[in-house]
Amino acid sequence: MEIIVPGIVYLVGAGPGDPELLTLKALRLIKNCDALVHDALIPDEIIQEARKSTEIFHVGKRAGKCSVPQVEINTLILKLAKEGKKVVRLKGGDPFVFSRGGEEVSFLEKNGVSVEIVPGITSGIAAPTYFGIPLTHRDAASSVTFVTGHEHFDKEKKSVNWRSLAESS
Amino acid sequence: MEIIVPGIVYLVGAGPGDPELLTLKALRLIKNCDALVHDALIPDEIIQEARKSTEIFHVGKRAGKCSVPQVEINTLILKLAKEGKKVVRLKGGDPFVFSRGGEEVSFLEKNGVSVEIVPGITSGIAAPTYFGIPLTHRDAASSVTFVTGHEHFDKEKKSVNWRSLAESS
Repeated sequence: MEIIVPGIVYLVGAGPGDPELLTLKALRLIKNCDALVHDALIPDEIIQEARKSTEIFHVGKRAGKCSVPQVEINTLILKLAKEGKKVVRLKGGDPFVFSRGGEEVSFLEKNGVSVEIVPGITSGIAAPTYFGIPLTHRDAASSVTFVTGHEHFDKEKKSVNWRSLAESS
Repeated sequence: MEIIVPGIVYLVGAGPGDPELLTLKALRLIKNCDALVHDALIPDEIIQEARKSTEIFHVGKRAGKCSVPQVEINTLILKLAKEGKKVVRLKGGDPFVFSRGGEEVSFLEKNGVSVEIVPGITSGIAAPTYFGIPLTHRDAASSVTFVTGHEHFDKEKKSVNWRSLAESS
């Protein structure tokens, strides 16, 4: 991959909602970015950590509401990077767990943009923890599986095998 | 559960190794605790965030080396809590993903200790991310499973069904 675009995009996980579950690295990048492109479900306390001069774009998608199509989000981030900006693309949870982060990275790298990924705490782990439920336990659960609630609508054949999943441990 | 012990234990995930992947909440608790009981694989930069007056206990277990037995770790944490201390029990990754956090919480709560759990970034997600590998992808991976490498040695029958896992997606 040849890096030809002057800016850089940080694909950052904001964690599960509690602003204190942000990582130190995410906070540092948010405080120092030129543009912040964020999803829905990101707490205001986190957005407000950006400098006053930071351009902020809310591209959040929520079920049943109008949203910015993925192709427009990609185009916006590419445009900002081409302007030489440090862009934080902030997603709820972890950017690589059910968050289409992989698709955004592919698009940006194909277009010569340098991308760095910063993991966040995924809600699938944090939510049960906040209820005191250990996801694994030596006596009771030797594995844990995270499964999407709805597969990509234009897949010819669904790929999740629920029967096998139920039998796996 | 009746809380009868004056101290409190925070069971905290330190994340996968990069000190900047610590959460803001974990850092606040480490900076303000009276005692810090930590595993191996926690970076020195994180331990050094504790106050000079904080009692620090390294109880790390590493394959092939002497280690502090779990029962001694439990007894130590209970003793510190009974002394009225704010105790941070710091574990690599997330405390509820392959980390025996559930066992420590059960023991402490049975003994009347108040416990709060703070999720951390699990290495199972962070390590592939640092190599640019998305764990899920709408076209290629609709689920992800984390499985222990070795089950509890005194289980009568192993519970992981590898064949079903392989067929599940």
